Amino acid sequence: MCSDQQRTDDRRVHGRADAERPEVAVILAAGEGSRMAAYEPGTPKPLIKLLGLPLIERTMLACREAGIREFIVVTGYEHERLQAGLEQIAARRGFNLHCVFCPEWSKGNGASALAAAEAVAGRDCILMMADHLVESGLIERVCTADWHDADVMLAVDTDLDAVHDPDEVTRVAVDGDRIRHIGKTIEEWNAADTGVFRCRGPLFDALREVQAAGRFGLSDAVQLLAGRGRAQAVDVTGCQWLDVDTPAAYREAKRRLMASLTKGTQDGFVSAYLNRPVSLRLSALIANTPVTPNQITIVCFLLMLLAAGLLASPWYWAWVLGGLLVQFSSIADGCDGEIARLKHIGSRRGAWLDTMLDRYGDLAVTLAIVWRAAQRYVCPYVWPAGLVAAAGFILASYVTKEFALRMGWSYPDDVLNRLKRRDLRLLALAAGAVLGFPYVAVLLAGALSHMCIAGILARGWMLARGC
Amino acid sequence: MCSDQQRTDDRRVHGRADAERPEVAVILAAGEGSRMAAYEPGTPKPLIKLLGLPLIERTMLACREAGIREFIVVTGYEHERLQAGLEQIAARRGFNLHCVFCPEWSKGNGASALAAAEAVAGRDCILMMADHLVESGLIERVCTADWHDADVMLAVDTDLDAVHDPDEVTRVAVDGDRIRHIGKTIEEWNAADTGVFRCRGPLFDALREVQAAGRFGLSDAVQLLAGRGRAQAVDVTGCQWLDVDTPAAYREAKRRLMASLTKGTQDGFVSAYLNRPVSLRLSALIANTPVTPNQITIVCFLLMLLAAGLLASPWYWAWVLGGLLVQFSSIADGCDGEIARLKHIGSRRGAWLDTMLDRYGDLAVTLAIVWRAAQRYVCPYVWPAGLVAAAGFILASYVTKEFALRMGWSYPDDVLNRLKRRDLRLLALAAGAVLGFPYVAVLLAGALSHMCIAGILARGWMLARGC
Repeated sequence: MCSDQQRTDDRRVHGRADAERPEVAVILAAGEGSRMAAYEPGTPKPLIKLLGLPLIERTMLACREAGIREFIVVTGYEHERLQAGLEQIAARRGFNLHCVFCPEWSKGNGASALAAAEAVAGRDCILMMADHLVESGLIERVCTADWHDADVMLAVDTDLDAVHDPDEVTRVAVDGDRIRHIGKTIEEWNAADTGVFRCRGPLFDALREVQAAGRFGLSDAVQLLAGRGRAQAVDVTGCQWLDVDTPAAYREAKRRLMASLTKGTQDGFVSAYLNRPVSLRLSALIANTPVTPNQITIVCFLLMLLAAGLLASPWYWAWVLGGLLVQFSSIADGCDGEIARLKHIGSRRGAWLDTMLDRYGDLAVTLAIVWRAAQRYVCPYVWPAGLVAAAGFILASYVTKEFALRMGWSYPDDVLNRLKRRDLRLLALAAGAVLGFPYVAVLLAGALSHMCIAGILARGWMLARGC
Repeated sequence: MCSDQQRTDDRRVHGRADAERPEVAVILAAGEGSRMAAYEPGTPKPLIKLLGLPLIERTMLACREAGIREFIVVTGYEHERLQAGLEQIAARRGFNLHCVFCPEWSKGNGASALAAAEAVAGRDCILMMADHLVESGLIERVCTADWHDADVMLAVDTDLDAVHDPDEVTRVAVDGDRIRHIGKTIEEWNAADTGVFRCRGPLFDALREVQAAGRFGLSDAVQLLAGRGRAQAVDVTGCQWLDVDTPAAYREAKRRLMASLTKGTQDGFVSAYLNRPVSLRLSALIANTPVTPNQITIVCFLLMLLAAGLLASPWYWAWVLGGLLVQFSSIADGCDGEIARLKHIGSRRGAWLDTMLDRYGDLAVTLAIVWRAAQRYVCPYVWPAGLVAAAGFILASYVTKEFALRMGWSYPDDVLNRLKRRDLRLLALAAGAVLGFPYVAVLLAGALSHMCIAGILARGWMLARGC
């Protein structure tokens, strides 16, 4: 409910709601994809899973992020199995799905595209390939482009060095915002066809025209329109896109998806250089299972409780195990967010629960360590110092959240902010436990927390001058 | 910087930025105000203070909230002292001020208004009286009204029963959005003149016209335009306004300002029925001093530290004093926000600091109570339970703030939310200390906190379904 609202708002701000934008996408999913058959034998290529989600589901999700909810999918090879899979996806995601079977799919992608003509009914729409991994920002650019006296738009990439497989790419000769020539074999070209089109009725007329002449490629129709000066190029250079049609491209797609996971996360030092590299590998494995982010959150919390139990015991080897568990839980705690982003199943309430259980997990571990220290050391200050440290762990998180709530913008990701994060604190506790001095680690981490809070209060006060 | 930004955004959303809106206000401040002279003998009436701020400063601040930054103030009686006072206000608040002295001010407010004609230079502007206490929402309504074939707009109130001093009011006969008649003595009337006008050049022409005929009231000019069907009524019924020209009206203004302070605050049970009534009386006193909200914040924090020191001691009477101090600090902690709103000197960073020091104050008091209990009771669970309680006090605040940050909307102000607030917790600690059982109170408050957190996690999870 609220995520829809936000998406609409975002579009209103960024995407000029007054301009017309397509609300439907045609996805060509008819081909056989023989070069990918090894991955999931017998599965139609659009349903081959990439890090837990079918290729075509990723395509549709990227469209949804650009505000598209209605999909016309053209099927061909293994169309009954494909349609069953698509219906599951549509039901799970709440998409409006319309499948069109194209018996002549093997002739070419132009034949497939033409099969969608009736369902499109002349509307302004996006036209994409099921097996292209495309970031939503690219689709957004095409959706928000203005029509300039054209019958088709094609998203093109002019950074030819960055194209993954230059031998396979469809070549485009662009002049200003006009496409002059398009084809696999043209000699003079300055851009690559990304496989993302925007079209209206006239493209289907052009498809009919070239098919009457025995040519069944989508680019044949675009070439026809280009010859008439009616094919418009939309420059999407800098956006990510990839034609996943070979095992090498599949591996590259995996690599890119994993790399995109850490974008925009605010990692502390330990997270960035120790936890994240491990949690990403873990997530790549978990992605292929039905495990949900909330389940990971709960497991990480239970691991912290287990670690607390071990750290409360008097045996050194239990501490070592407890310390290792703390660090493992700290690492695995990155996986819930990673899986949520990777499989597009994140929820705000899940993130809320995660944060709260993190605080309670820290509290349990700290309580256990201080409890054990109080048995070990006869000193009246063991507990008071432990209490202040435990409070510091929570307040360290509280101080910047309260700042964001009050100001409406975040306290910067500076050294103070990174030093007071959970990743470093838990590593300190884990290392302390393994070395036999968990309580000392609690005191050090607590002192660091309070010092960072003091620093953030001072710096935040300056930064928020006039607020 | 950020507050300006927000104001601009607010205006864009609520006030239709595309429509033209006035950016300058003419404020008539020339009169003698003899009936108010008793309050601050020798002070020009616009500078008489109402809960710490000169009347005219409140008028200007209400305009600023409606997006107005430029002021043309017409002076007369005691004009040099008034101008000096105005310049101080303008410097403090960053207003663009232009003072115009009107030697003929004693003839009538129409003469004063005409003196502003040159400075207005034909612009669309708000015209107000210095001594009218007007809520910014009323000015906002006048600023966003559309001109309908008129030369002047007058904000009118049709709820005649709610008018404070019906004998003094200027009467208006309104028909649709047209003013038919206006005057102190007209027989048939259905609305009251609130003293807030919006005008352009033609009003000044009308003023000249009536003055040539020997009439010097602003309403004479409005009556002239009304006779020509060129005077428009803007219905502001429901908005607060008050002509502060008698001691009775001054007391009423004070009452209304104090009553407005609790609007929109999220008070717990103890706050609403015990703390707030006391803190409001305190704030009414503090308002007349130069004490700032941040100073109050610091003093409340120091009182909590002092209370902690007393509660850590072994003497019962020190506990009683400590408990009373805790409750007093809890009450006084409401004053910083009240003074900030009352004197329009609130800051977001001040609110941030206040919240952080509240948490540290609670921590100090809890630590002191648990420390004393650990000396008194020989039981290994005194400290662990105290630590968990202290963490609960912080987490109780954390859980709803994290909710607001994640969801972008607040967890509702339900019973769970009210029971876990600081007002109740501190009253419990204070009562416990006075009764001789502060540690028991810590445990009860801690248990209540954690139970409320659990309840909020469960209810918030349901409320955020789909988020």
